[in-house]
Amino acid sequence: MARLFKKVAIVGIGLIGGSLGMAIRQRGIASRVIGISRTKKTINKAKKAGAIDDGFCDFKPLSDCELIILCSPVNIIINTLSKIKPFIAPGTIITDVGSTKSEIVKSAGMILPKGADFIGAHPLAGSEKSGIDNANGGLFEKSLCVLTPLKTNSKKNIRRLESFWLALGSRVSFLTPSAHDKITSFTSHLPHLIAFNLLESIPAVDLRYAASGLRDATRIAASDPLVWADIFISNRAAILKSAGKFQTHFDKFLKLLKSGDSKRIIQVIKKAKFKRDTFLNKVNE
Amino acid sequence: MARLFKKVAIVGIGLIGGSLGMAIRQRGIASRVIGISRTKKTINKAKKAGAIDDGFCDFKPLSDCELIILCSPVNIIINTLSKIKPFIAPGTIITDVGSTKSEIVKSAGMILPKGADFIGAHPLAGSEKSGIDNANGGLFEKSLCVLTPLKTNSKKNIRRLESFWLALGSRVSFLTPSAHDKITSFTSHLPHLIAFNLLESIPAVDLRYAASGLRDATRIAASDPLVWADIFISNRAAILKSAGKFQTHFDKFLKLLKSGDSKRIIQVIKKAKFKRDTFLNKVNE
Repeated sequence: MARLFKKVAIVGIGLIGGSLGMAIRQRGIASRVIGISRTKKTINKAKKAGAIDDGFCDFKPLSDCELIILCSPVNIIINTLSKIKPFIAPGTIITDVGSTKSEIVKSAGMILPKGADFIGAHPLAGSEKSGIDNANGGLFEKSLCVLTPLKTNSKKNIRRLESFWLALGSRVSFLTPSAHDKITSFTSHLPHLIAFNLLESIPAVDLRYAASGLRDATRIAASDPLVWADIFISNRAAILKSAGKFQTHFDKFLKLLKSGDSKRIIQVIKKAKFKRDTFLNKVNE
Repeated sequence: MARLFKKVAIVGIGLIGGSLGMAIRQRGIASRVIGISRTKKTINKAKKAGAIDDGFCDFKPLSDCELIILCSPVNIIINTLSKIKPFIAPGTIITDVGSTKSEIVKSAGMILPKGADFIGAHPLAGSEKSGIDNANGGLFEKSLCVLTPLKTNSKKNIRRLESFWLALGSRVSFLTPSAHDKITSFTSHLPHLIAFNLLESIPAVDLRYAASGLRDATRIAASDPLVWADIFISNRAAILKSAGKFQTHFDKFLKLLKSGDSKRIIQVIKKAKFKRDTFLNKVNE
């Protein structure tokens, strides 16, 4: 595998940051990977896990990195932008792995210095688990990474970032930040919203009768509460729309059920099953 | 394993019926297992798969069976009751595996002859797949089977049916038919209702951006449309109530989102995550 970068920094060494560090080091994509974390404990764990060569609790070491990857939850990414600003050398590529893109890309444009090239990214990989303890270097293989560059980004840097994700074993797709947020409001944020509220609705005493269907349907409800509250608020305009569409369909279905219209109920279920069978067999891991 | 019955009949040799036949034969629970199906093709497949000793396309062979298990979808079970009625010898235990219980148990009480002892059962095991081709003899191991006997059932027969499910490797729970239907309207029917309507809401073109979260959340939407339309209609009173409860919570959550109340959003998510982590780790397979 070609070495694409000299020094890469990962800011926030959790599930995604840690997995990224491992994958970069295992595949020899950079000469050196450093990690930035609030705590020494996480840095030590990350070193032991082989996710980073070295780690720091401050942002000074960012100044000679070619690529900086912000791997915290959405609102921490946004808070981090102003903290890292003083340490960014001109020509540095800055990217992230946040689950929403409009707010982050907009904030980066306003906060970062002119010479910095911020290109938004969202690898559609993850888990309901979190933290460096659950990181693994294979997380991005065969998954899809969405890049959301702007017209103001350097074409050369966009190509470099694309090569980076391809080298990690991902496929790469390009979307505008708002198209990304609209799509993921349906494919990711709405399913999470539903899973949390489904569990909220089920009487706790009934859960001993739950079987594998409910277990799988609510796996994503075991996700980190702070991360997801953050995603919901960051993308709330798009989510309120997709949630409204779901409510309309759900309500219509209940009306069919009330009237006992089995013919049309079967039609809706068949269409849903067709969508699931057709598209989700080739799902991004 | 003790032999509990001489001759057992399985009516409807699909995923559940076929898996039951395999499990009974593998564990030596009966001397002989016969299968009843509409088609010779299914019977031949079931024989080849080791699910039955012999198979028939008519109900006459039921007359010397000690235990008859109705394994079709809910409304076919109800239709089958009058068809099997002429062939049931006094003292025969009749049971089923249907996903709803009130309607089936009530119909059995009205349709079957006095000497027949119908005891409702629902093994909380299954898959989004269907048909004899997907049957497997291990399906019921460590799963939970809910029995819904009435006061009119023979105590001895209830104990025999309990022993039967224990011998299959299941745990056994007892509920009234209506308690069963109320609980499963939350733990099984509502999640299916939601999964179908979630897929209905997502634009088909967006599904190429779906990741493992949506894949798992909608696995149950790949289930058989006729089977599920049937379940929904059979249990619609309870489902409309549980769906209404879900709508209320979902709507409340969207209001929190609209007002950007991250503190209360986090509370709801934390509660849902706690429920998922606490109860669903010990889920019935």
